[in-house]
Amino acid sequence: MPQTIGFIGLGRLGLPIARNLLAAGHVLKLYNRTAEKARPLTDEGALLVADPAEVAEPGGIVFTVLADDAALETVTLHNAAFAGRLAPGGIHVSVSTISPDTARRIAAEHARHGVHYVAAPVFARPEAAAARKGTICLSGPAEAKARVRPLLAQAVGENLFDFGDDPGAANVVKLAGNFMIGAALESMAEACTLAEKNGVSRDSIMQLFSQTIFACPIYQNYGKMIAAGVYDQSVGFKMPLALKDMGLVLQTATTSRVPMPLAQLLHGRLLSGLAKGRHEWDWIGLAAGASDDAGL
Amino acid sequence: MPQTIGFIGLGRLGLPIARNLLAAGHVLKLYNRTAEKARPLTDEGALLVADPAEVAEPGGIVFTVLADDAALETVTLHNAAFAGRLAPGGIHVSVSTISPDTARRIAAEHARHGVHYVAAPVFARPEAAAARKGTICLSGPAEAKARVRPLLAQAVGENLFDFGDDPGAANVVKLAGNFMIGAALESMAEACTLAEKNGVSRDSIMQLFSQTIFACPIYQNYGKMIAAGVYDQSVGFKMPLALKDMGLVLQTATTSRVPMPLAQLLHGRLLSGLAKGRHEWDWIGLAAGASDDAGL
Amino acid sequence: MPQTIGFIGLGRLGLPIARNLLAAGHVLKLYNRTAEKARPLTDEGALLVADPAEVAEPGGIVFTVLADDAALETVTLHNAAFAGRLAPGGIHVSVSTISPDTARRIAAEHARHGVHYVAAPVFARPEAAAARKGTICLSGPAEAKARVRPLLAQAVGENLFDFGDDPGAANVVKLAGNFMIGAALESMAEACTLAEKNGVSRDSIMQLFSQTIFACPIYQNYGKMIAAGVYDQSVGFKMPLALKDMGLVLQTATTSRVPMPLAQLLHGRLLSGLAKGRHEWDWIGLAAGASDDAGL
Amino acid sequence: MPQTIGFIGLGRLGLPIARNLLAAGHVLKLYNRTAEKARPLTDEGALLVADPAEVAEPGGIVFTVLADDAALETVTLHNAAFAGRLAPGGIHVSVSTISPDTARRIAAEHARHGVHYVAAPVFARPEAAAARKGTICLSGPAEAKARVRPLLAQAVGENLFDFGDDPGAANVVKLAGNFMIGAALESMAEACTLAEKNGVSRDSIMQLFSQTIFACPIYQNYGKMIAAGVYDQSVGFKMPLALKDMGLVLQTATTSRVPMPLAQLLHGRLLSGLAKGRHEWDWIGLAAGASDDAGL
Repeated sequence: MPQTIGFIGLGRLGLPIARNLLAAGHVLKLYNRTAEKARPLTDEGALLVADPAEVAEPGGIVFTVLADDAALETVTLHNAAFAGRLAPGGIHVSVSTISPDTARRIAAEHARHGVHYVAAPVFARPEAAAARKGTICLSGPAEAKARVRPLLAQAVGENLFDFGDDPGAANVVKLAGNFMIGAALESMAEACTLAEKNGVSRDSIMQLFSQTIFACPIYQNYGKMIAAGVYDQSVGFKMPLALKDMGLVLQTATTSRVPMPLAQLLHGRLLSGLAKGRHEWDWIGLAAGASDDAGL
Repeated sequence: MPQTIGFIGLGRLGLPIARNLLAAGHVLKLYNRTAEKARPLTDEGALLVADPAEVAEPGGIVFTVLADDAALETVTLHNAAFAGRLAPGGIHVSVSTISPDTARRIAAEHARHGVHYVAAPVFARPEAAAARKGTICLSGPAEAKARVRPLLAQAVGENLFDFGDDPGAANVVKLAGNFMIGAALESMAEACTLAEKNGVSRDSIMQLFSQTIFACPIYQNYGKMIAAGVYDQSVGFKMPLALKDMGLVLQTATTSRVPMPLAQLLHGRLLSGLAKGRHEWDWIGLAAGASDDAGL
Repeated sequence: MPQTIGFIGLGRLGLPIARNLLAAGHVLKLYNRTAEKARPLTDEGALLVADPAEVAEPGGIVFTVLADDAALETVTLHNAAFAGRLAPGGIHVSVSTISPDTARRIAAEHARHGVHYVAAPVFARPEAAAARKGTICLSGPAEAKARVRPLLAQAVGENLFDFGDDPGAANVVKLAGNFMIGAALESMAEACTLAEKNGVSRDSIMQLFSQTIFACPIYQNYGKMIAAGVYDQSVGFKMPLALKDMGLVLQTATTSRVPMPLAQLLHGRLLSGLAKGRHEWDWIGLAAGASDDAGL
Repeated sequence: MPQTIGFIGLGRLGLPIARNLLAAGHVLKLYNRTAEKARPLTDEGALLVADPAEVAEPGGIVFTVLADDAALETVTLHNAAFAGRLAPGGIHVSVSTISPDTARRIAAEHARHGVHYVAAPVFARPEAAAARKGTICLSGPAEAKARVRPLLAQAVGENLFDFGDDPGAANVVKLAGNFMIGAALESMAEACTLAEKNGVSRDSIMQLFSQTIFACPIYQNYGKMIAAGVYDQSVGFKMPLALKDMGLVLQTATTSRVPMPLAQLLHGRLLSGLAKGRHEWDWIGLAAGASDDAGL
């Protein structure tokens, strides 16, 4: 059933998600800090507004797909009109990868206005989101989740996992997943470097692993790039954002008293990559750290 | 075509491989340090000999499936009769996970007697080997490999990857793979611990990951055990052997000048597990380290 | 020349510093969140006020010795009266270990009111501060530093190192030093554990090292405690505060793009200590991590 | 009392030690693999022999100062004449940094011939050894130690610490010390890098630390080099030897079940240094790793 949906944040991930909603027949009211990025969608009929709060309607639904905690707080917590216009009964669907604590704080603040917060971070490279092949981590109040599920299916895909009521839960899972992806990158990087320096081609070992014990998307897709050792082409998720995410992983780990030495290693790899000027690389390029250390 | 095959080493992995060869109709001449372990196979018709060299026949084929470099060297290098009886034209198929350097040294020594060394370490838990669902890493002289491939298919399965002539190459790949499996264990362990301490069940996150971005055997099979946190049941590969393997990874990394911080982390986890008395645990139990550190 | 000095923060370190100023003949106007902690000093003649801003006088000097960035910001940035009452020409001497960025931010804000910010974090266990044997890291505007140097000598001791104008510089040095102390703790801990498990007493190796190549206070004083393995007696600096400091080290490292794997290790040790319930231990107890891992 | 002393190994450390013995009036019978290195000493009256065993006399004393376990084993264990000529009652004073297990093995083998093994590894840069300012770690049988103590005082200095009977004990201490020195290097390296990238000079922080909380030889001497960031001048102990030593630390740690993450970090730094071609650097250059990672 077509409806009017608010949408804030048209970055690499936000754009294909918004476009999917538009293609499904909904009316989209958009806001993006850099207005010109909305052009492809306004050309297709979406409406552009000048202030983030204007995308909201009483009892409506607003998606946010923003880069970090600070951006989301600016648009929601520090913008009194946002929750005010959504109330009563409105739903804020937050797709951003943020800290569980920020999610809980925004949810509590929204609740004071009668607005529901649904956490819906996704695992999806931009092209996967466009093809509605993302994986959604969901948490929040049951009725609100029920209402947004059909929209999420149209926007990101059918692959949805529900983690209960805690508005922070879905972000815990998302952070855990980003960490695990990073761990797989480092694992492939060290293995490929070991192979390379022992006369076995990087490509040949990734062939074996990605067809057998590690026959799954992360190892198959990223494994090719790590075997090739090229990280500044077809960039889906940049190093600085990955560093931000790994920082959230470690911050959540600190708050909850969980030493994560492997997450620390990944944070160090990304930090070193940025220290070496690799801001425009895809974060898969954390794999270059193992090669650097080996003098390659 | 049934033939007489020598077979040395009836441990957890050797036993099902030997049984598969017997089931395929071959005559097996067995040697095992602890003779009684051969009983199940001699009951099915295999012959047991008293000295490892006696399994060899001129121009024949001998499989070895031994625990470590030292055991393999004892049976081959330090037993002059071994290569002597296999020559000329015999083939030694070495399934053990050993260091690439040891493989090269044995190959060179065999070559002096006209014996071929074929490296064929496998990825297979005992039950997978029994079901001929293992993955074989192969390297060595081309003709020798061609002659043993049908036997390997009968013994371990069809899944075979050839890494060329270097007798050490297949072991480099095997070590890289064991390292990558260990990395996946640590990755799941830290992620599950983070989830658990943030109110999200270990099982629920492994459900998501093992069905989506990590939908592959290692994460699916081991993920269940790590979610359950039980490591001393259905033990397929014990901690002390895993420590030995991770030691080989780091030794090979040192020799070839490849810093591997993640491999070091895994070695430390296994070492700590043994310091805590977990000798009888499956090596998946390295995942307990993250829980220990988090006070769980 | 006796003068009236404002003083905020009477924790483990603040108390002996305030007492030294009082003993030097100055009039002290105190504020502490928990008023009763001021009793020993009011008994000796110090004045207690009800609001932090009240310790300040126009053109006067205020010392703050607070636990963390947040506490300092609350008292200064979020309390408009603070800088207002100090202006014009007043000096805020900040002894707290805080992040360089927070120091710079407060300094800039103070400057808008004509107030000078002098960073003066110190290396001193409480008993060393009492004995005026601390080491002071100093940075800030030259004239302000010149004015407070005699007071710092009376309050903490003569051992003073000047790091120039940048209000953040002294805190960079302080954080670097705390990191180095932590590194020495971990170093002694691993060495003692290695000795102990090889039949050499912890005490005997610390005897050697603290008399020869490491004959300096950190190894001598802390080495005795690590040799003894007792960390909950004579607590000078607690684990939670140390975790806070190591968090500042890593935050500063992240901001300035400096991978610090050893600092990460120390952060993990402290975090694990807290996860195991060691909140009341001295931070030297991070040394227990090596023993835990070794099953001792 | 002047006596005839056997001496094997005239490397960077062996040479000044041998010269000190010669200067003390003893007759020296030398062996060195590269005979020309003995020239400075034969010019001063020492005798050069062609086979290591020839330095030994029945009941006499032989010093060995060799590069690694293998070199020492070659000269002693694999040279039957060595213990044979020293027996009965001879003493082998082993100054080399070797593994405790090798020390124990050689001691046991010597004992079968009635020869005593005294472990006497030293902490001394070549110039410190020349000035008899080294520190000696001693262990072995009491009477043998009593007999060699005066010689050690003449050869290396008065600073001697006795660790009992176990022939491996002194080497445990020596390895622990080398590890602690390496830890201090890494600590200074990360601290200096943090300072440098935050606008504080490396030299200024090392000034503070080496005069206060870390006022001891390691931080003072090595701190200057790390502040300067120059590692290929005045080389006292080269990277490959340091990697060997750190390998012995980790091997001993593995055997005795002691996880040592900081030792692993140091091993990785040295390994990376060699991977980058720094074979001729002093091992203090492991400090360059932190700078490399930070893009400096």
